[in-house]
Amino acid sequence: MKFVCDRDVLNSAVSTVSRAVSSRSSLAVLEGVYIRAEENGRVTIIGNDLEIGIESVIEADVKEGGEIVIDAKLFGKILASPNDSTISIETNEKYLTLIKSGKAKIEIPGIAPDEFPDLPQVSEDYSVTLPGGVLKNMIEMTSFAAAKTDNDPTRMGALLKIMPDGLSMVALDGYRIAQRNVSLEGNFEPKEMIIPEKSLTELARIIGDSDEDIKIIAAPGHAIFLLETCKLVTRLIEGSYTNFERIIPTSFELELECPTHQIADSVKRASLIILNDVVKGPIRFNITDGNINVSCTTSAGSVDDNLSVDTPPDVALEIGFYNRYLQDVFNVLRDDNIMMKFNKSINPLIITPVEGNDYMYMILPIRLRNAG
Amino acid sequence: MKFVCDRDVLNSAVSTVSRAVSSRSSLAVLEGVYIRAEENGRVTIIGNDLEIGIESVIEADVKEGGEIVIDAKLFGKILASPNDSTISIETNEKYLTLIKSGKAKIEIPGIAPDEFPDLPQVSEDYSVTLPGGVLKNMIEMTSFAAAKTDNDPTRMGALLKIMPDGLSMVALDGYRIAQRNVSLEGNFEPKEMIIPEKSLTELARIIGDSDEDIKIIAAPGHAIFLLETCKLVTRLIEGSYTNFERIIPTSFELELECPTHQIADSVKRASLIILNDVVKGPIRFNITDGNINVSCTTSAGSVDDNLSVDTPPDVALEIGFYNRYLQDVFNVLRDDNIMMKFNKSINPLIITPVEGNDYMYMILPIRLRNAG
Repeated sequence: MKFVCDRDVLNSAVSTVSRAVSSRSSLAVLEGVYIRAEENGRVTIIGNDLEIGIESVIEADVKEGGEIVIDAKLFGKILASPNDSTISIETNEKYLTLIKSGKAKIEIPGIAPDEFPDLPQVSEDYSVTLPGGVLKNMIEMTSFAAAKTDNDPTRMGALLKIMPDGLSMVALDGYRIAQRNVSLEGNFEPKEMIIPEKSLTELARIIGDSDEDIKIIAAPGHAIFLLETCKLVTRLIEGSYTNFERIIPTSFELELECPTHQIADSVKRASLIILNDVVKGPIRFNITDGNINVSCTTSAGSVDDNLSVDTPPDVALEIGFYNRYLQDVFNVLRDDNIMMKFNKSINPLIITPVEGNDYMYMILPIRLRNAG
Repeated sequence: MKFVCDRDVLNSAVSTVSRAVSSRSSLAVLEGVYIRAEENGRVTIIGNDLEIGIESVIEADVKEGGEIVIDAKLFGKILASPNDSTISIETNEKYLTLIKSGKAKIEIPGIAPDEFPDLPQVSEDYSVTLPGGVLKNMIEMTSFAAAKTDNDPTRMGALLKIMPDGLSMVALDGYRIAQRNVSLEGNFEPKEMIIPEKSLTELARIIGDSDEDIKIIAAPGHAIFLLETCKLVTRLIEGSYTNFERIIPTSFELELECPTHQIADSVKRASLIILNDVVKGPIRFNITDGNINVSCTTSAGSVDDNLSVDTPPDVALEIGFYNRYLQDVFNVLRDDNIMMKFNKSINPLIITPVEGNDYMYMILPIRLRNAG
């Protein structure tokens, strides 16, 4: 194999596919990026840890076709170090790889490409296309609520529901639910898939600030996200997703419109004395006429803060939450104001936009010892 | 104690003195910042881990004088969190401390100030004043060469030598020496002090981009660096500093003027296959007519790079170095070109500016197995 190409283009492709490379695997080949040069001038670069695979194709001056696997970390460091704008990659029959750029020659051992796992081939029978920015936003508004570990593996992913007139993404653990709904013109064939949270997070990173269209191709066991210059293939999580809709309250005793930044800052301040995961709080909301008192008392001290809101007369509700579950949602909310919807102090809090049903976040409260 | 002041001013003072606070001490009082409010409107804030002490004085509206010690990390977090531009600090006789800003009240336990170690009082009998930028540059060009650990504690500091017409700073471990000389107008009384590397690094951070004058006050066992808004007191290291001058060669068989960036990039590239501290290189310089060949071979691969330089005819020298010792100095050199001065492959390399003797860096070579 031998090809010459632009160093920045190769560097960018290798760093993108490296997101899917295992950093520590029992198989050396899985710690590498696979490179295949074809004599038509296409060089395909793949990283694959068997859960996610990312493939990127670049153009190159291919002198001789072939394939190789190169250690991803070392290759990434070599490509990132300053040198000439073009680079030449050349392998011999023993997979020894010679990398030349400017006056520098670097020779490193490659790995036989035979054992590198192929990306699943998926037919395009089923596909949906939407703007990358919309998909990224759906991921950011929900995926943080997926469980990090859980006996039920479906909770470590997010449910992507394709409906005739739009998409919905939901993530949940045992204590909270985040749901983002998007209307799209089209007439999509309904489909549901549970996508690992890690794959979604990598997808959001790859999308970055681009708003190019993304085609979602669904197949048994896998989904493919097709971008302009690369594709991400992810394993789907099998199982039946928690029937969450019946848990979400639909009527509320108290609905408050709150300035997002003010309540977020109050919760952040009250969290100052929550020193680590052992001293967990809770954060108390004590809602009375025209005021939310946000407080927290731990062994490290106490915080007491107040926020003016419009309330109905004679309101009186004290309710407690684990601070991270509040801070996580305030980190992603972009609206100036939000609705907080309560029933009793033992019932979940629902956070939504002031109008519409584009977004819904539900948190279970912590039972307070001395609640009013 | 009770005072009201600007939150940003207090935050900045506390974060500066916190550099001298132990992050883990057996004495809780050493993990705190000491605060003393005086009724003339001065609030003095001190961090002191017994090796370094930093004191900062701010102006405040002092309602009641007094003193307290507050956990540095928690206080720093509270001051850094967004809130009103003024802040009020109030303690009671049990050292409970109430921090008020905007609508938020935070109450945390303070620590009795009695056991907080006083900063050493030093008379100003001896002092030298120089621009902060000059002192910072002396620290940056030398302190990296101080030993991290050594049986000889003087090597974990840098020697500051005050001479009638200037200053010199030297740091060394067993393998290299860095020396920076500065001429200053004045007629200083000669003095030598060995300052812990950690104190110098903190001093350089405090100086930052400011070029205000710094007064160095020397006293038995301690030195004080007086800046406009704060002072740093450091313990000095006792002992006699290595007599390094006799080790430095004064005549050379080969002197090469090299473009700094090019040789730095070559060494960086050759270091790519030095994967960790176990696989140490060496980096080889093979100097022949008009060329420096920079190479390195490890179990991870080999790198071969070339650099054009003006050499005398018939030159032939192969010499090896530990890559970090070269990279450390290239990180701080700012000149476009430098002089590299060699004798044989078993003799040290000296790096200096092209002209003058403001700076000198010496590294011992690694003996090569198959040197030419």
